[in-house]
Amino acid sequence: MASPEIETLTQALARLPGLGPRSARRAVLHLLKKREAAMTPLLRALERVNENLAICGTCGNVDTIDPCSVCTDAQRDPRLLCVVEEVSDLWALDRSRLFPGRFHVLGGRLSAMEGVRPEDLTIDRLIARLSEGGVDEVVLAMNATLEGQTTAHYLAERLEGFPVRITQLAHGLPVGGELDYLDEGTLAQALRARRPVA
Amino acid sequence: MASPEIETLTQALARLPGLGPRSARRAVLHLLKKREAAMTPLLRALERVNENLAICGTCGNVDTIDPCSVCTDAQRDPRLLCVVEEVSDLWALDRSRLFPGRFHVLGGRLSAMEGVRPEDLTIDRLIARLSEGGVDEVVLAMNATLEGQTTAHYLAERLEGFPVRITQLAHGLPVGGELDYLDEGTLAQALRARRPVA
Repeated sequence: MASPEIETLTQALARLPGLGPRSARRAVLHLLKKREAAMTPLLRALERVNENLAICGTCGNVDTIDPCSVCTDAQRDPRLLCVVEEVSDLWALDRSRLFPGRFHVLGGRLSAMEGVRPEDLTIDRLIARLSEGGVDEVVLAMNATLEGQTTAHYLAERLEGFPVRITQLAHGLPVGGELDYLDEGTLAQALRARRPVA
Repeated sequence: MASPEIETLTQALARLPGLGPRSARRAVLHLLKKREAAMTPLLRALERVNENLAICGTCGNVDTIDPCSVCTDAQRDPRLLCVVEEVSDLWALDRSRLFPGRFHVLGGRLSAMEGVRPEDLTIDRLIARLSEGGVDEVVLAMNATLEGQTTAHYLAERLEGFPVRITQLAHGLPVGGELDYLDEGTLAQALRARRPVA
């Protein structure tokens, strides 16, 4: 029976992915006990992000500047464009620092089940970007799901006329994957895409 | 490589107990994508709690009012007082709604290792509360750790002169506990405190 304000804060935190009622309560208690070290910095950070929230008009990334910090990064190769389903995918690939190019966020995947059609995604914007020229390779980095792969095939067809290389992420065994524990689909893909030993 | 504001927010969230860098990133992404439904409510809730944060001068609970919502709850029996180590313990017991009385937060436990002495805890305040009269029973609800039990014994001695019943939480098998998996200490306690079958 904490005060209504504390209950409201607990519920707001509990709705975040990865947190539940129990961990939200622990987090709130931490915030209450460490006001200077935890509560104030979190509050200030939230305020600043909330004030400056922006969707990148170029790639669809969520950031505090538009164009976003990825699009404006002069270190990146503008000839490489990686197409992803969601902002979270962009972040996941960006975190690895393995992809030196730029991104394009589709905003979802084609789905008959969920009624997502091509016009619901940012495909027109992607085509506009490619029409401006300067891109040599488009990496289709859809999820390895049925809908992700359907989207990739659809995109590959739509982009056929452009003078760009269309590639997609390799499918196969994940690092540390043990054959005994992997699903048949992954095994089939790994077998189909087998390569000569160097 | 998100903007510095987003990085700062991610780090502030990642420092909460139960969240790590990965889940903090997912939480931030969720906040960014659901500005109205998630970001704004969280921000408002944090602001309100931050403005009204108060430590209860009576029991030591953290709340937005002083005396706190537990101490001012007229439904509670003022003759029952439960002494706990930390605010989190108060919340844990309060959540269960099983204890109908009030609380007293010690602010820690006696510890030779960590140099916590009786004067570092709110024992004087507890004694002052008891001196005012009106309390019939003091429940010592320390953790079932060596230091918690040392603290309970120390308190029991300090409170000897008062006309109150001193009790402590029962020790024994936890609900669902299987003998085969329980530690020897718990088994020894459960055996020592064995009771006749009703």
